[in-house]
Amino acid sequence: MKYSEFFIPTVKDAPSDAEIISHKLMIKAGMIKQSSAGIYSWLPLGLKALRKIEQIVREEQDNAGANEMLMPTIQSADLWIKSGRYDDYGKEMLRIKDRSGREMLFGPTNEELITDIFQSYVTSYKELPKNLYHIQWKFRDEVRPRFGVMRGREFLMKDNYSFDISEEEAKNSYNKMFKAYIKTFLRMGLTPISLRAETGPIGGNLSHEFQILANTGESTLYYDKELERLNPEKLDPDNLQSYYAAVDDQHDENNCSVKKEDLKISKGIEVGHIFYFGTKYSEKLNAYVQDQNGKKIPVHMGSYGIGVSRLVGALIEANHDEKGIKWPKSVAPFTLSIVNLMPDDQNCNTKSLEYYSYFMSNNIDTLYDERICSIGKKLSDNDLIGTPIQIIIGKRDLSAGVVEFKDRMLNKSKKIKIEEVKKVILEKINS
Amino acid sequence: MKYSEFFIPTVKDAPSDAEIISHKLMIKAGMIKQSSAGIYSWLPLGLKALRKIEQIVREEQDNAGANEMLMPTIQSADLWIKSGRYDDYGKEMLRIKDRSGREMLFGPTNEELITDIFQSYVTSYKELPKNLYHIQWKFRDEVRPRFGVMRGREFLMKDNYSFDISEEEAKNSYNKMFKAYIKTFLRMGLTPISLRAETGPIGGNLSHEFQILANTGESTLYYDKELERLNPEKLDPDNLQSYYAAVDDQHDENNCSVKKEDLKISKGIEVGHIFYFGTKYSEKLNAYVQDQNGKKIPVHMGSYGIGVSRLVGALIEANHDEKGIKWPKSVAPFTLSIVNLMPDDQNCNTKSLEYYSYFMSNNIDTLYDERICSIGKKLSDNDLIGTPIQIIIGKRDLSAGVVEFKDRMLNKSKKIKIEEVKKVILEKINS
Repeated sequence: MKYSEFFIPTVKDAPSDAEIISHKLMIKAGMIKQSSAGIYSWLPLGLKALRKIEQIVREEQDNAGANEMLMPTIQSADLWIKSGRYDDYGKEMLRIKDRSGREMLFGPTNEELITDIFQSYVTSYKELPKNLYHIQWKFRDEVRPRFGVMRGREFLMKDNYSFDISEEEAKNSYNKMFKAYIKTFLRMGLTPISLRAETGPIGGNLSHEFQILANTGESTLYYDKELERLNPEKLDPDNLQSYYAAVDDQHDENNCSVKKEDLKISKGIEVGHIFYFGTKYSEKLNAYVQDQNGKKIPVHMGSYGIGVSRLVGALIEANHDEKGIKWPKSVAPFTLSIVNLMPDDQNCNTKSLEYYSYFMSNNIDTLYDERICSIGKKLSDNDLIGTPIQIIIGKRDLSAGVVEFKDRMLNKSKKIKIEEVKKVILEKINS
Repeated sequence: MKYSEFFIPTVKDAPSDAEIISHKLMIKAGMIKQSSAGIYSWLPLGLKALRKIEQIVREEQDNAGANEMLMPTIQSADLWIKSGRYDDYGKEMLRIKDRSGREMLFGPTNEELITDIFQSYVTSYKELPKNLYHIQWKFRDEVRPRFGVMRGREFLMKDNYSFDISEEEAKNSYNKMFKAYIKTFLRMGLTPISLRAETGPIGGNLSHEFQILANTGESTLYYDKELERLNPEKLDPDNLQSYYAAVDDQHDENNCSVKKEDLKISKGIEVGHIFYFGTKYSEKLNAYVQDQNGKKIPVHMGSYGIGVSRLVGALIEANHDEKGIKWPKSVAPFTLSIVNLMPDDQNCNTKSLEYYSYFMSNNIDTLYDERICSIGKKLSDNDLIGTPIQIIIGKRDLSAGVVEFKDRMLNKSKKIKIEEVKKVILEKINS
């Protein structure tokens, strides 16, 4: 993509109501624009980041055997009245009357609707286990929306729902998702910490939340240092769940199973939550199947959420400096920036275009900055939007047979010979 | 994907309120499930079709230089009051009061919001032209939602908006989109017919609608037969717009510029609509830029819509028979079905799995039907869901060194030698 053909309206100053760094940086980098309180438009660069994150979430759901579908945003109130949650949700639920006066709502979550879909098709244990997910916009009418996309009212969530014949099978599904979650966050370059959690209004008695480490995080976490060194190839959920981890108000120094020297304390941000709630919804919404003996029994269910739009903010909280965002490669809107410092110089243009077409043809998501503007603005914009790998092409460097290579994550630059650029960059990207 | 691991709840009978064939087939093929009047959940197979269609729409927008972004579903009423359309829309607009009593709405279209975004960033002619699009769920509270996803209340639409410095430039943008639309529909194996249209509540004086041909279509079209033979490589919008085409109530035999023998009459379904409306919204919402002389002038705008979820229905109306759907290859949820008639036979299994892993590793979206069920059900399910290319593997055929190859579009089968299967199928898919 050529920079001048892409709409990245970077701005000098973040608005005064932007309290946290990710909110400020997303506005300054031209990723989002607020349209109403807690409701944002995703500008092209923001959408690209959102889609990369969404895609990793999707792939790990698919790898774990879940099937993607899509439920609508607007639901009838009927099922919520049946489940008993229509009143529970209070003012956080956006309630709507349609033109015929029917009570509708903008779904804040989907236990009711998915249970209804399941029960209308599945009648036998032979069709289990089932695991269905969707990635859809939700609405929660927060009293005080803030922190940009971290606590918006309209937000993108991946939620899925498992259906099993027994508690034992359901816990197996739960553990599969647990593992998929750890993998998902590791692939984004994050450090996930899993914690036993309260189940709240969803119900049930088994639940974990997933936090990721970020110095600017909202919670303080106490956890076994082993949780920082997970090997994505060898994840054992039972083992993982046995490590100590607690948020500050649950942490008890005298009742902590881990040695002091192995205990770490860091700030974290919640990005996922999983629940096993047994037959709470299947009983109320009539999701019964025949078991091996021909007996009708309610299915055992779990639900699993990842805040996809929240992750964009969380990733920035975990990866930034005073210049801007430092995207991990796997979720960067652009993997590579080619910064042409002299777009009116023929040598600079020829070399830049050669690299641009080379990397594009190698399926590297490349931003070619060919704008006619000051060198300072070019360098600072590319650092602000946080492209992890940058090639900076200047007239003097070219005459000396080199270009500048910048690793944005490490904030380190070095000169490399022009004939080695393609190889070095491809190696760096694939490392 | 293995059939037994994918949730395709085919059903015998369509509900009695399903009046048209696409609605019936989508329910029978387990693609959608109604949750409320005019509101559907997209089951995994339906979502796969929707995403393939969406991706073609996206690619042709990108090819035409438009930038993808994403506006929210819930908007404040403020901008609509400014534009004067808040009252125009009447009961079709889903109006909502949030917890603080602010008037909100579920966006039925986005002229207001995009104009507001544009004006807050763009101030000079130097940044023009701009073309921004999004693919987002819309809501129109129809009095009588029907015809499945063809006239739903919650529906997926691609809408984009062009911004230009003059009427001439704006018409250039309009023509680019015109061409992109023709290409989009041709890539889906459809025959698009473009017609001059009324602008309606959007405003302006230049507009075209795009219909696609389908025997079961809702409108009757009269048009120059040349429109059926477009070459996607050589599309000239000005030329295309000069061909005669009219819907029945506009067609006038005595005032028709095309010779009787060149006039075709067919049924059609509307799938897209484009508008040039000049400065209607930019004046009201203050989207002014400085021109070459430093003078502030309102930008010239156009808007362009494609009914993405409607296209799923339209494609089925255009491609089906008494057995079910006949997906064109480019939009088929699965390109290839491998139908193993004898999953308890080792030879059948070994051969099926060999083909399955071969085609999957060649990035062919393959459905491997390894279900334990009757041969009749297998064959009819794969025809119902409409996989365009099918390999049917039976015990007797294998002993004879052949498998059956079925072209679902032509409904023709033939035996091919097992050693030629890979080559023949890949050629067929890439043809």
